[in-house]
Amino acid sequence: MAQILSGREVASAMNDALLTRAGALAERGILPTLAIVRVGENESDLSYERGAEKRAQKVGVGIRKLALPGDVKAETLLETIRALNDDDSVHGVLLLRPLPEQLKGDSQRICNALRPDKDVDAMTDLSSAGVYQGRSDLGFPPCTPEACMKILHHYGISCAGKRAVVIGRSLVVGRPLAMMLMAEDATVTLCHSKTPNLPEIARQADILVTAAGHLGFVDAGFVRPGQVVLDVSVNWDPEKNGIAGDCVFDQAEPVVSAITPVPGGVGAVTSSVLMEHVITAAERRGL
Amino acid sequence: MAQILSGREVASAMNDALLTRAGALAERGILPTLAIVRVGENESDLSYERGAEKRAQKVGVGIRKLALPGDVKAETLLETIRALNDDDSVHGVLLLRPLPEQLKGDSQRICNALRPDKDVDAMTDLSSAGVYQGRSDLGFPPCTPEACMKILHHYGISCAGKRAVVIGRSLVVGRPLAMMLMAEDATVTLCHSKTPNLPEIARQADILVTAAGHLGFVDAGFVRPGQVVLDVSVNWDPEKNGIAGDCVFDQAEPVVSAITPVPGGVGAVTSSVLMEHVITAAERRGL
Repeated sequence: MAQILSGREVASAMNDALLTRAGALAERGILPTLAIVRVGENESDLSYERGAEKRAQKVGVGIRKLALPGDVKAETLLETIRALNDDDSVHGVLLLRPLPEQLKGDSQRICNALRPDKDVDAMTDLSSAGVYQGRSDLGFPPCTPEACMKILHHYGISCAGKRAVVIGRSLVVGRPLAMMLMAEDATVTLCHSKTPNLPEIARQADILVTAAGHLGFVDAGFVRPGQVVLDVSVNWDPEKNGIAGDCVFDQAEPVVSAITPVPGGVGAVTSSVLMEHVITAAERRGL
Repeated sequence: MAQILSGREVASAMNDALLTRAGALAERGILPTLAIVRVGENESDLSYERGAEKRAQKVGVGIRKLALPGDVKAETLLETIRALNDDDSVHGVLLLRPLPEQLKGDSQRICNALRPDKDVDAMTDLSSAGVYQGRSDLGFPPCTPEACMKILHHYGISCAGKRAVVIGRSLVVGRPLAMMLMAEDATVTLCHSKTPNLPEIARQADILVTAAGHLGFVDAGFVRPGQVVLDVSVNWDPEKNGIAGDCVFDQAEPVVSAITPVPGGVGAVTSSVLMEHVITAAERRGL
């Protein structure tokens, strides 16, 4: 029987601490504020926006919503971002992505128009340089890998001297997480679709993180007693008619020491991480 | 008996190709030009400068030397870099580092003043974002890890599906090399001073790269038959009264498949990589 690493519990502890920090800012007349820039009326964007609003309210973060028409020109979006750069009452900016087709060719230019110190969702190149170099003065890391680190920290799981195996090399999860685990002195192996003998490598991990995005990918062959398993993926499981991670939970859970559930694991922490970035940005600016 | 991976042979092949490319540029009236900015009269800087001049001459690259006094102010150095940014006849800029004490507090601001497309020695944050993201449109990777890749390519050693172990997580060698090996589909484990059981992990490698910087660090316990070993380190060996790598060569060479010597290995390739960056920068600008 593994310890269940509850993302909901981690988020709840984070939210308490964030509310205190936002309160201290409020006493100085600062409302930490996240601007959410949405292009078009995509349902998943709208749903994300609603979720962020709810979470923001809980922790004392203000939300400013900017909705642009679906056929907006790159130049207009760039102007919107530049105006937010110059707006001292906005501490963080979240641009909902993917952008519509007509903007895709300009998406790097658009993302990099944002000031790194307001880049709470790691969309600028300088933010990625910060994660890679292990520096905190260049934007913020992506929220999902940081949510993984928050779970490890909350449950007192140290990385130093441990072997970590990360499955998936994306720029939103695998690669930044490898850098963050290494920054805490784990020895990290970064696996991907071209890795042979993946189960064997996975079994060598003390900390196994899967972000493969394949339902049922991590089965009994990937795990051994003593491991901590973080399941980052959110897959649709037609059998249970709901979401599930990469792990065959019923196979992994009886073997390993600790594991995150899906839902209620890593994904439950990401929006608190986003809010923490906004509050941190406001604290830094307030200095 | 291992195959000796000769950096000198790789550099020679590279130089032939570079001379051809520089010739094609010359026909269009373009002299690919590297500006070397030196602060003070440090002997190791002067020696590096002389080496670069010699190598540049061999491959048809022009050198512009800018020597600033050792007590130069940050603002003057910044103006020098900005002038080079705007100078269309300069394609690459190399700032010799480390900078003197009085500039250290400003060194990030100084390094990032350079335009990334002229950053042939990876001193800007955007260049490091490029290595991390696997993109070639943001500056160039550091020369030493790229020299490792050149050796692998020259000798037809593929990375895809291989396990690579990199010892050392610095931003000039270990981390960028991990990214570059991964970009070619190796499964990379990045080891460092806090890694336990390093010999055991090293033996799992198909491609073992050591950049520990410790004479004699990689002994018989780190290697097994079939491995390719790249020894990046340059250590002083008092016994042989000369330089040597991390590997106990006499122990590793009889066991592994292929190995770089020190000297004459990775280090023999780096200045050709630097010259290639200058020529590539000139070609890109010439388009």
